[in-house]
Amino acid sequence: MAFSPALSRLIDAFRILPGVGAKSAQRMAFHLLQNEREGGVYLAESIQTAVASIRHCRECRMFAEAELCEICRNEQRDASRVCVVESPADVMAIEQNTNFQGRYFVLMGHLSPIDGIGPEQLGLDVLRERLASGPVEELILAVGATVEGEATAQYIAELARQNDASVTRIAHGVPVGGELEYVDAGTLSQAFSGRRPL
Amino acid sequence: MAFSPALSRLIDAFRILPGVGAKSAQRMAFHLLQNEREGGVYLAESIQTAVASIRHCRECRMFAEAELCEICRNEQRDASRVCVVESPADVMAIEQNTNFQGRYFVLMGHLSPIDGIGPEQLGLDVLRERLASGPVEELILAVGATVEGEATAQYIAELARQNDASVTRIAHGVPVGGELEYVDAGTLSQAFSGRRPL
Repeated sequence: MAFSPALSRLIDAFRILPGVGAKSAQRMAFHLLQNEREGGVYLAESIQTAVASIRHCRECRMFAEAELCEICRNEQRDASRVCVVESPADVMAIEQNTNFQGRYFVLMGHLSPIDGIGPEQLGLDVLRERLASGPVEELILAVGATVEGEATAQYIAELARQNDASVTRIAHGVPVGGELEYVDAGTLSQAFSGRRPL
Repeated sequence: MAFSPALSRLIDAFRILPGVGAKSAQRMAFHLLQNEREGGVYLAESIQTAVASIRHCRECRMFAEAELCEICRNEQRDASRVCVVESPADVMAIEQNTNFQGRYFVLMGHLSPIDGIGPEQLGLDVLRERLASGPVEELILAVGATVEGEATAQYIAELARQNDASVTRIAHGVPVGGELEYVDAGTLSQAFSGRRPL
């Protein structure tokens, strides 16, 4: 016995979502059909609208419905400071938790030659142009402290230097509120070598 | 700064899915827009098709696209044995792992007066009719071993007795391959009181 075709297809379709395996997909399909038919219709329409209308900001590659995103349209934001991040979620995190008033550049990933992600896929030509044409004084790297993030940071730092922009990198170290004994080796060693005078 | 309207709406819509909170919803939306636009369109269409075409089988309440589900349409299946389960997933589990050749009745939940789920919401009037009209000899209860499942089982057992059908319940006890010391108290006590002569 198998599920009816429409149900099998629905369960299968849910598996495109990240972190959703066979069991969760089945659970989602049942929940939707049993308790959330209206919600399901809303979800379907939201996906269709989003896929049709959301593209990348011409300047910073953030998701946007217009040609420029809200931040790049905002003349109040300091165009001389550009923060480079890996994902739109990082932009949101920085906006919500810091008082950074500059602009962004969203890589939408990090260098990963093995997956075919090179400088072009990260839009680094767009960034190069921005560095060459605009008055970028400081490029702030806020990419992940992973091996790929590191490689990406090095590549972008080189790009910035070629265009006479100074490059900084957000601090990596012991999290605020973190206890030393629970911090992993890499973070602790990073924190030690990055110590600053009080 | 907030996400663009279509993106906010998409993130919001993903939260109707079970087990999806704010972070996962955001991750799903980004993943879909970044890597799975075609998959997203497929998912949206699958939801719309499913919501429009899937209803409940007239006889057993299983999800079905026709008036009767595949099992109820199958004349080879023994109509004198009916297994009562809480969800469509349970039907699939029994079909895949046992050689039960009877039919099913899917409650789509369990008695839970506090949530407004009474006998009517579980379709027990449909079950009563089936017991009264058909040649049901054995009603097999395969509902969960929870407090609500217990109450539901008692209610249905009474219904079956009124209609001269014998009632059985699937065994609850130590899982096969399970070690005694890791089994919880309730299961062990259930296994003990349910011991059988070898």
